[in-house]
Amino acid sequence: MLAFRTALARSDAMIVCGGLGPTQDDITRAALAEVMNVPLDRDDALVATIRTMFETRGRTMPDNNLLQADVPRGAAIIPQTRGTAPGLICRVGQKVVYAVPGVPYEMSDMFERAILPDLLERQRQAGETSVIRSRVLRTWGASESALAEAVAERFDALAEGGGVTIAFLASGIEGIKVRLTARGEDDAQAEALLAGEEKTVRAMIETKLGEIIFGVDDQSMEHVVAAQLQARGKTLAVAESLTGGLIASRLVNVPGASAWFRGGVVSYASEVKFDVLGVPEGPVVSAAAAEAMASGVRRLLKSDVGLSVTGVAGPEEQDGQPAGTVFVGLDLDGECSSVRLHLPGDRPRVRAYSTISALDVLRRALERTLVAPPLT
Amino acid sequence: MLAFRTALARSDAMIVCGGLGPTQDDITRAALAEVMNVPLDRDDALVATIRTMFETRGRTMPDNNLLQADVPRGAAIIPQTRGTAPGLICRVGQKVVYAVPGVPYEMSDMFERAILPDLLERQRQAGETSVIRSRVLRTWGASESALAEAVAERFDALAEGGGVTIAFLASGIEGIKVRLTARGEDDAQAEALLAGEEKTVRAMIETKLGEIIFGVDDQSMEHVVAAQLQARGKTLAVAESLTGGLIASRLVNVPGASAWFRGGVVSYASEVKFDVLGVPEGPVVSAAAAEAMASGVRRLLKSDVGLSVTGVAGPEEQDGQPAGTVFVGLDLDGECSSVRLHLPGDRPRVRAYSTISALDVLRRALERTLVAPPLT
Repeated sequence: MLAFRTALARSDAMIVCGGLGPTQDDITRAALAEVMNVPLDRDDALVATIRTMFETRGRTMPDNNLLQADVPRGAAIIPQTRGTAPGLICRVGQKVVYAVPGVPYEMSDMFERAILPDLLERQRQAGETSVIRSRVLRTWGASESALAEAVAERFDALAEGGGVTIAFLASGIEGIKVRLTARGEDDAQAEALLAGEEKTVRAMIETKLGEIIFGVDDQSMEHVVAAQLQARGKTLAVAESLTGGLIASRLVNVPGASAWFRGGVVSYASEVKFDVLGVPEGPVVSAAAAEAMASGVRRLLKSDVGLSVTGVAGPEEQDGQPAGTVFVGLDLDGECSSVRLHLPGDRPRVRAYSTISALDVLRRALERTLVAPPLT
Repeated sequence: MLAFRTALARSDAMIVCGGLGPTQDDITRAALAEVMNVPLDRDDALVATIRTMFETRGRTMPDNNLLQADVPRGAAIIPQTRGTAPGLICRVGQKVVYAVPGVPYEMSDMFERAILPDLLERQRQAGETSVIRSRVLRTWGASESALAEAVAERFDALAEGGGVTIAFLASGIEGIKVRLTARGEDDAQAEALLAGEEKTVRAMIETKLGEIIFGVDDQSMEHVVAAQLQARGKTLAVAESLTGGLIASRLVNVPGASAWFRGGVVSYASEVKFDVLGVPEGPVVSAAAAEAMASGVRRLLKSDVGLSVTGVAGPEEQDGQPAGTVFVGLDLDGECSSVRLHLPGDRPRVRAYSTISALDVLRRALERTLVAPPLT
């Protein structure tokens, strides 16, 4: 309650995450009612909604969940679509408090569906008309500092003015993001500024660092690979050792993956590589083993393309190779190749880097191949 | 800078995440120097360390990275073990600012290695002697409100006093955590309070809700399953359809997984289920298909135990089954069984729930089997 008052004294709007659950330690509703100086009313429609939610899952609503139907008088309700606790929009004088569940999956849904539109509407009413738009260029394979050097000249020029700013976001296992942000008087102006700037910055990066930009905004590496496979009418199978299924699990996240993804083999034990994928006996951390894994899984799962990863997650070395040594194998319609990588970090990190690196190897290889003619 | 001053006016210690990168928009170092009213000095030892870090990865350090060796005079350095930006400990009068990189993987390392010990030492110097200890009981398969009802009586009793508090943490795809927190005059007293309370709360939960507590504190579901397999001397293989490798990728996270994990097959396309796993042609979202997948992967990968998942991630139905219908199959030394689940949520959520549910089915099955006699 004190925290609410302190925050509201400094800010026009406030988002409270969590404390809306059905248990005794969930105190957000009561604290909000106190700050608003109103009583809590039990909302009958909410009670019915929560009860139905339990019943459709074949469960009885515990009495505790009735607490989640309590609403500070005058507050607006953000309906739930993913859990049981509704969100709340509470006006406090000219200011506003948004209360949403702490579960990230429920919170982000309410943010996009209710909070963002409400904030934009408040901004409009306050007479603020300029708009801010941003675009993210997603890269894999260069360090943040190398990217900064590549665009340093432009960064400095923009610092003198130009309506656009550049920021670098190191997202760890997903590579470095280059974010362009433009402020304009309206959508069209901001978007035009962004489009021009993207062209300039993209050219600077590609000249200095090659084809490291794999996507824009929300495009993940697997979405890009999926689009390339579909454009070429190719199916894919993967053979994974140290990544243990991480590559496959990213690929099935793409909507419609069943059109081009056959599946995979997690050949964690060496004997699985020999017996199931037909890898010749010998060192399993090698270019030859990676290529044999890619061919083996392509044959076994009857796909056009086979992608494989074998390597040393660490901390100990294996087959005389130090931790972080990873081979990515590729079999494109029977044509085999492999790439050797040396990746930093502990076990989970080496795995995560291996996963995105393998997809990037596939992306670059597919980019070099011509689009196959449509099947007739 | 204003933000630093505002925060320091309210708090004794402050953690700043991010802004320590090598690019032009990384301003934390300069802002700290200003708040401390000292100049920035370039640290030669840091320059050497950062340069070496690049060289061991076969790269040349860009000049931009020199910025990361700038240190506000008088600040202590938190050495990097995972990236390039060192952390900083800056005393500001009686208060302290910890500056760490924003990359979560680097930040959490520095927090545990340097910030937490420093905070504890400051607490000790301030004469604070009581200790707070907590223990988390991890559950899968009950709602937060059902758990709260199960322990309601105890919760209310503790509210009257007793030195222990209970909190419920809904972590979404990892189930509900029940956290017990005790304050004592020393470690021994706090731990004794916790041990007694754990026994009481555990009994209340298990009486009302069955064997839903799968682990304690940091124990994940895969760690528990791994320990059970090792105790019984059994090896495991998995066959995954809608989870697309998520189960396998969790299992390989357990250190020493190669001792008991053979690998898996991601049979995303139905033909892979028929051709590779020997599932009889017919509906692939069924108890029979789940059991055939478990047996098939056990045979193919030569393991003692086969675990499988097949189901409908949605949004469309499949084989006449609605989204969220999932079958978990199990083949324990040739004995087959299956469990049917109905899971809520969108595609990623159904996948995540399927993954932990499948591991939980295996956990409960292994718990019921006797420990195998040691091999002689």
